[in-house]
Amino acid sequence: MTAVTTDPRTGMTILDEDTCWSLLSSARLARVAIAIAGDIEVFPVNIVVDDRTVVFRTGEGTKLAAAVIAPRVAVEADGADPATGRAWSVVVKGRAERLDRFADIYRAEDLTLPDWTGHPKQWFVRVYGDQIAGRSFETAPT
Amino acid sequence: MTAVTTDPRTGMTILDEDTCWSLLSSARLARVAIAIAGDIEVFPVNIVVDDRTVVFRTGEGTKLAAAVIAPRVAVEADGADPATGRAWSVVVKGRAERLDRFADIYRAEDLTLPDWTGHPKQWFVRVYGDQIAGRSFETAPT
Repeated sequence: MTAVTTDPRTGMTILDEDTCWSLLSSARLARVAIAIAGDIEVFPVNIVVDDRTVVFRTGEGTKLAAAVIAPRVAVEADGADPATGRAWSVVVKGRAERLDRFADIYRAEDLTLPDWTGHPKQWFVRVYGDQIAGRSFETAPT
Repeated sequence: MTAVTTDPRTGMTILDEDTCWSLLSSARLARVAIAIAGDIEVFPVNIVVDDRTVVFRTGEGTKLAAAVIAPRVAVEADGADPATGRAWSVVVKGRAERLDRFADIYRAEDLTLPDWTGHPKQWFVRVYGDQIAGRSFETAPT
């Protein structure tokens, strides 16, 4: 991992943008958080990173409606490497768009995007991030 | 898992409250989402469930400030059982409170609360949920 800043006190490393995208690309599972009218929805989704956007599928009213009503979303993924004892977390923030042009949908269908729920989902949502941030840190011995 | 509703079309099961708390109690890692001024923060934390509240530690300005400024938070945990091919996701929503009375802190210190970052953290935050919701679903073959 490429580091731009490490806090010697905490061992926490702020990751640069390329490292953030690389780690996010390695994640299959992420959580999407959406704020709606003072409330917050969080749901796990399978993601794929495509050209520095994040694509997920949904067939459900809540997620789809949330992404359309409150298009600002945060997508978080994290992971840990037991070999190195380090964990990471990356958050992308940006706007979510439902794909409804055939060309966009065909492109999304070419992505290898597993569906965690095992049930075919009709819609693709693409998140165009305007901020990405990540950090890595030592995990506690377990 | 106790089910209250299963959608035969999608195989998705809405979990009852007891099952939600039981699953959440089995999770060590969760994500906390906080909405602040139209933005959303999401960060991974180690949690422990104590008497139907969720406790996590923080030593960082952002998380602590966020929990104090915007006390409404959502805590999400999920997991999958490869043996059964089913996954689950539970979200608790409620208010977050920094513990600052000695009795509360001593009680929290008795909880077995691992610190994912391996760095001691000064503050405890307790989330008093007023809503809990969860679902389980089949995962896609991988």
